[in-house]
Amino acid sequence: MTVYDIVKSRLKEIPHNEKLLSLKYESLDYDNSENQLFLEEERRMSHMGFRCLEIRRWVICGLIGFLTGLIACLIDIAVEELAGYKYSAVKQNIEKFTEFGGLSISLILWAALNSAFVMVGAIAVAFFEPIAAGSGIPQIKCYLNGVKIPCVVRLKTLAIKVFGVICSVAGGLAVGKEGPMIHSGAVVAAGVSQGRSTSLKKDFKIFEYFRRDTEKRDFVSAGAAAGVSAAFGAPVGGVLFSLEEGASFWNQMLTWRIFFASMISTFTLNFFLSIYHGKPGELSSPGLINFGRFDSDVSSYIPFESFLFFPYYFPGGMLGALFNVINYWLTIFRIRYIHRPCLQVMEAMLVAAVTATVAFAMIYFSNDCQPLGQDSTEEYPLQLFCADGEYNSMATAFFNTPERSVRSLFHNPPGSYNPLTLGVFTLVYFVLAVWTYGLTVSAGVFIPSLLIGAAWGRLFGILLSTITSSQSVSIWADPGKYALIGAAAQLGGIVRMTLSLTVIMVEATGNVTYGFPIMLVLMTAKIVGDYFIEGLYDIHIKLQSVPFLHWDAPPTSHWLTAREVMSSPVTCFNRVERVGRIVDVLSNTSTNHNGFPVVAHTTENEEPGKICGLILRSQLIVLLKHKVFVERASSRLSQRRLQLKDFRDAYPRFPPIQSIHVSQDERECMMDLNEFMNPTPYTVPQETSLPRVFKLFRALGLRHLVVVDDENRVVGLVTRKDLARYHLGKDGLEELQLAQT
Amino acid sequence: MTVYDIVKSRLKEIPHNEKLLSLKYESLDYDNSENQLFLEEERRMSHMGFRCLEIRRWVICGLIGFLTGLIACLIDIAVEELAGYKYSAVKQNIEKFTEFGGLSISLILWAALNSAFVMVGAIAVAFFEPIAAGSGIPQIKCYLNGVKIPCVVRLKTLAIKVFGVICSVAGGLAVGKEGPMIHSGAVVAAGVSQGRSTSLKKDFKIFEYFRRDTEKRDFVSAGAAAGVSAAFGAPVGGVLFSLEEGASFWNQMLTWRIFFASMISTFTLNFFLSIYHGKPGELSSPGLINFGRFDSDVSSYIPFESFLFFPYYFPGGMLGALFNVINYWLTIFRIRYIHRPCLQVMEAMLVAAVTATVAFAMIYFSNDCQPLGQDSTEEYPLQLFCADGEYNSMATAFFNTPERSVRSLFHNPPGSYNPLTLGVFTLVYFVLAVWTYGLTVSAGVFIPSLLIGAAWGRLFGILLSTITSSQSVSIWADPGKYALIGAAAQLGGIVRMTLSLTVIMVEATGNVTYGFPIMLVLMTAKIVGDYFIEGLYDIHIKLQSVPFLHWDAPPTSHWLTAREVMSSPVTCFNRVERVGRIVDVLSNTSTNHNGFPVVAHTTENEEPGKICGLILRSQLIVLLKHKVFVERASSRLSQRRLQLKDFRDAYPRFPPIQSIHVSQDERECMMDLNEFMNPTPYTVPQETSLPRVFKLFRALGLRHLVVVDDENRVVGLVTRKDLARYHLGKDGLEELQLAQT
Repeated sequence: MTVYDIVKSRLKEIPHNEKLLSLKYESLDYDNSENQLFLEEERRMSHMGFRCLEIRRWVICGLIGFLTGLIACLIDIAVEELAGYKYSAVKQNIEKFTEFGGLSISLILWAALNSAFVMVGAIAVAFFEPIAAGSGIPQIKCYLNGVKIPCVVRLKTLAIKVFGVICSVAGGLAVGKEGPMIHSGAVVAAGVSQGRSTSLKKDFKIFEYFRRDTEKRDFVSAGAAAGVSAAFGAPVGGVLFSLEEGASFWNQMLTWRIFFASMISTFTLNFFLSIYHGKPGELSSPGLINFGRFDSDVSSYIPFESFLFFPYYFPGGMLGALFNVINYWLTIFRIRYIHRPCLQVMEAMLVAAVTATVAFAMIYFSNDCQPLGQDSTEEYPLQLFCADGEYNSMATAFFNTPERSVRSLFHNPPGSYNPLTLGVFTLVYFVLAVWTYGLTVSAGVFIPSLLIGAAWGRLFGILLSTITSSQSVSIWADPGKYALIGAAAQLGGIVRMTLSLTVIMVEATGNVTYGFPIMLVLMTAKIVGDYFIEGLYDIHIKLQSVPFLHWDAPPTSHWLTAREVMSSPVTCFNRVERVGRIVDVLSNTSTNHNGFPVVAHTTENEEPGKICGLILRSQLIVLLKHKVFVERASSRLSQRRLQLKDFRDAYPRFPPIQSIHVSQDERECMMDLNEFMNPTPYTVPQETSLPRVFKLFRALGLRHLVVVDDENRVVGLVTRKDLARYHLGKDGLEELQLAQT
Repeated sequence: MTVYDIVKSRLKEIPHNEKLLSLKYESLDYDNSENQLFLEEERRMSHMGFRCLEIRRWVICGLIGFLTGLIACLIDIAVEELAGYKYSAVKQNIEKFTEFGGLSISLILWAALNSAFVMVGAIAVAFFEPIAAGSGIPQIKCYLNGVKIPCVVRLKTLAIKVFGVICSVAGGLAVGKEGPMIHSGAVVAAGVSQGRSTSLKKDFKIFEYFRRDTEKRDFVSAGAAAGVSAAFGAPVGGVLFSLEEGASFWNQMLTWRIFFASMISTFTLNFFLSIYHGKPGELSSPGLINFGRFDSDVSSYIPFESFLFFPYYFPGGMLGALFNVINYWLTIFRIRYIHRPCLQVMEAMLVAAVTATVAFAMIYFSNDCQPLGQDSTEEYPLQLFCADGEYNSMATAFFNTPERSVRSLFHNPPGSYNPLTLGVFTLVYFVLAVWTYGLTVSAGVFIPSLLIGAAWGRLFGILLSTITSSQSVSIWADPGKYALIGAAAQLGGIVRMTLSLTVIMVEATGNVTYGFPIMLVLMTAKIVGDYFIEGLYDIHIKLQSVPFLHWDAPPTSHWLTAREVMSSPVTCFNRVERVGRIVDVLSNTSTNHNGFPVVAHTTENEEPGKICGLILRSQLIVLLKHKVFVERASSRLSQRRLQLKDFRDAYPRFPPIQSIHVSQDERECMMDLNEFMNPTPYTVPQETSLPRVFKLFRALGLRHLVVVDDENRVVGLVTRKDLARYHLGKDGLEELQLAQT
């Protein structure tokens, strides 16, 4: 029995819900309901009208990019200022007490400052908007996958997110401000594209055409891409991130718009940050994190080095997997014991204080002094017990924002770090980072991962150059590139992103020649890591029991057919249905269906009827609210007809059925669904294999897929949860259970 | 009446076929036929089996990348050597005669050498494989779109293509060697992935699983990407090119494999070319064309310059459109008058001779002498009538491979070119390039476009710096970046690629900061150009009457339904059908259908039957060839059962029906189609709107889509040509006619 098995058996004892699929999440509907109202509107629209819509889409994408860039700018400047203030204060204090002794006072000051920042941030998140915790990337992944996570794209979430991330980075936690940018961009996109804020009760009456899931999801893709682009200065990486996570059907114009938003976003950030840094026109800050330039002539690698990088590949996957396993336990622990907001705030403060203490102890006990060069990148060099003109090397790593530490590891000249310092730092920072991710603060895991990887990568580089120094191949003497490869390996091992991460890393380094080794490293990290445990984001998605759809059905699922996969019996409505029955069905909390096939002539206990269409809960609710009953048709002649606008106004927060009052008389009325149902829903025969059903469902971004027999009678309904249930476990195909929570 | 209208009315008189859709092109089938044989095989396969398949896919992609890189390397070295030999010979000759007079002999030598090279190349193309003419990008676009162009991915085509492109570039035509790389990569992919060459009658008995359209098309995407990657040193650009042109359903693993192939390809090229250039380890040649490094500190642009680049945007689109209009006429002219191979060879030779003559005349009459600096990038500086230590500046542009000329325009220091020289050069090269594209030689249009654009871009830059020189803003003094923007504008105006071209340009310059202005320039060029005429590749695709599917149905087509779009009546088969009827239907050359719905119980003149499945012509032919008749079932018991392998062995060149002998007795036999048909073809109801049908068809890469009534009876069949017929003209929706040719 290996250690891994012991760990696994231990895990089974802890209650968690990764083997369940929650039913509380609803799907986004990427397929337009082509009912008569919709078709009439589309047919009325001229060619010019479509062109105007297209122009409006571009304008929105430009706005998304601009606002996302501004927010990134705001976060960056706020963090710089706050952290600058904090480090200056602590540094002065330390310098004062270094001479006279009594450094413990400095420690207390540092720890107190950190805890205070983190407390404010954690209170905002824990008490006002818990969904703003973490990096937000798992939530955005789910949204782009087609799952509606409640509150994830609200304005309030954005405000708390931005405020929270400033606090937690300024509070010195082992976190980055990059991940939250992706979430922020997505919220900006969702807000701007709808032309209103439901939270603020403000409707600008613009962009009303885009008030439906299809359009909104497209814009959110653009927002996420703009976020990535602002975070890393990687517009192409942003586009690929959005596509990797979200795209089901690749659309050329959409991709082009996403790219536009990304470009505007990085350009805006670059422009304003350059002004802030006092170098307008230089455009030297395309992203929040800037890896600095890896010039090919300074640190080029020789071809066989990509194979020499080989031993680096495995630690990435393994350390990444270790990170994920520990974080998984911790998350389970938190789910079980730390679910009250005040406990969450206290844990966050504790971590902040411990981070400061550990950092202080490390700096205090380290005696690795380095000469203070002219070209040093340190902003707050700590002399401490070093000789004059020297600084404490451990402080470089700890007494700094993590972004700066990463850059130092990449670019400081050979010999800046002592191997022991790096080793201890790696270990300590690893533990801190694992503990920090999952706290109730908004913060990302990208930068800590890069930092850990850069530290051990540089350590390996130093060791390698020591071994090979006899041959005096000067090109190996630069450990910066090993730090870069290590950083990629560690990050890849934790998040397991592939294509987009390669491009992001390449764009952030600004050097295309590193693309090949970075790709190899990320691939190996993914393969090695997947052997042990899934990626960090996937773990957190699974622990939330989200019905997440992967790219393909499990390969060995060809023996399953739609008949076995579908849910049945299905609640169907007649073309002209009694209002009472509709209200009863919608009010039934035990089923809580969202889509209902409309059939020709059926009563409740007979054999299924022929499919005529599909109608959604949200549509029925709007119909009930406007009392569109057959009996009232005559009196309605004076009223205006129901239009698509009425559906759009109610989007996306359709009122619950309980809020709609239907009198006893009205219950006996009839409702004609013909005009409002989608008359041509996609259907599949019962014998269709699961991969085929999956492909149709995924490629078209469906929410409901009707299964029919050879007479076109409805026999079942396939939804997201039916497909997400099947996944490939260690022993072949496994089926998850469904939970109501 | 504007000039444009006059031009249009003139065009109408010339017979051409862009308003027709040819029926001779068949579709690729991106949807697997999930018949019993297929399902049995998939169900038999273990999880391990699928993993092995996946590994094999990666190996194939690696091979594709490697071979594509090698081919690019071969082309580059061959061109360098041949062109080097030619230019040295001519240069010596010119130097000899400059002193003594009689330069006309040099001219004759030059023209003769050029014509000889071009003649050899043109003969190979015109007489042996006409499909190898041009850049091959339109053909690959069609293939990735799902249209089977005959002979396009054969080994013979590759050989002629490579040979032809070496000849035409060495022959000094105004062409590039980059476009053909994309075609070459695609052929390599098609060959390697099938594990055999039908032309060479060599079957390696490997990769048999991949012998179907779905898999082959995926690999061809990877090959095209690898080609782009090798041509421009742009692996991400390559991936985006493939996706922009080909992807219908975005698949993460596939994209990742495509990226792998691209990376390997550029790495291989880089590795071998570095060795060839005597600098192993420097890895400085990631692509065939190398724009050289635009260092941000040397030639950075200030933000408002992107708006200052604005006047550059329009010439790109307009000059591009002009290029396309003239080339369109020329192509019509060629279709009409120059269709015999010997005429085509003669035209190519004429162009080669004229190119040499014009270049010679320009050099001869130019008196723009520049001092020969130490850091000059000229390989063959011509002194001619210049003073000692100076060289003729016009010769820089003409007496060089076009790649080098582009690089000179980007990077030569300010003042290297006289504005008049650039103006005349732009004009002359424009005419030559227009005339050259469409000749019966293999050659690309990328480099000439870049060269034209770089020339007028630099010209504008010089003018601008003259105007603003009073303010002495030194940053504007570098005309190289204006050359870059001009090159992007011109290329964008001609080919109208968007996302992928931006990324290709950014990767080729190696500087992310130029991404924003390049994107703006390409967008404007596309918008302006589209106002006048389509992109060059689209024009050529249209002139071939290819049923090309765009991304979406025309926006104003919501009033069309499947009932109006579909072809009907449909030839259906029974589940158990008489062999004679099958043979008759397949032999009917007037219909030449490729897919047949299988229905329950129908006779020829009755009402349509219920759909049970779909069977393809290719499957029926294999069945007929193996005589899988019900009556022979008893005797077949001794024989082995028909397997998927039999279908794969016949792929992709299924024999014509005429080659299969069916005796009179056999005609009375019955054939059971149940086991071989796809039992769950996708169907849509008759009322489905065209955009919805289009989306399903395009997203899943279908070849046949069955239209059914509400009893599930077959009423029609939608194929590619039914959808490609509708397109948006100037006056709204237009319908193309179908032609049999």
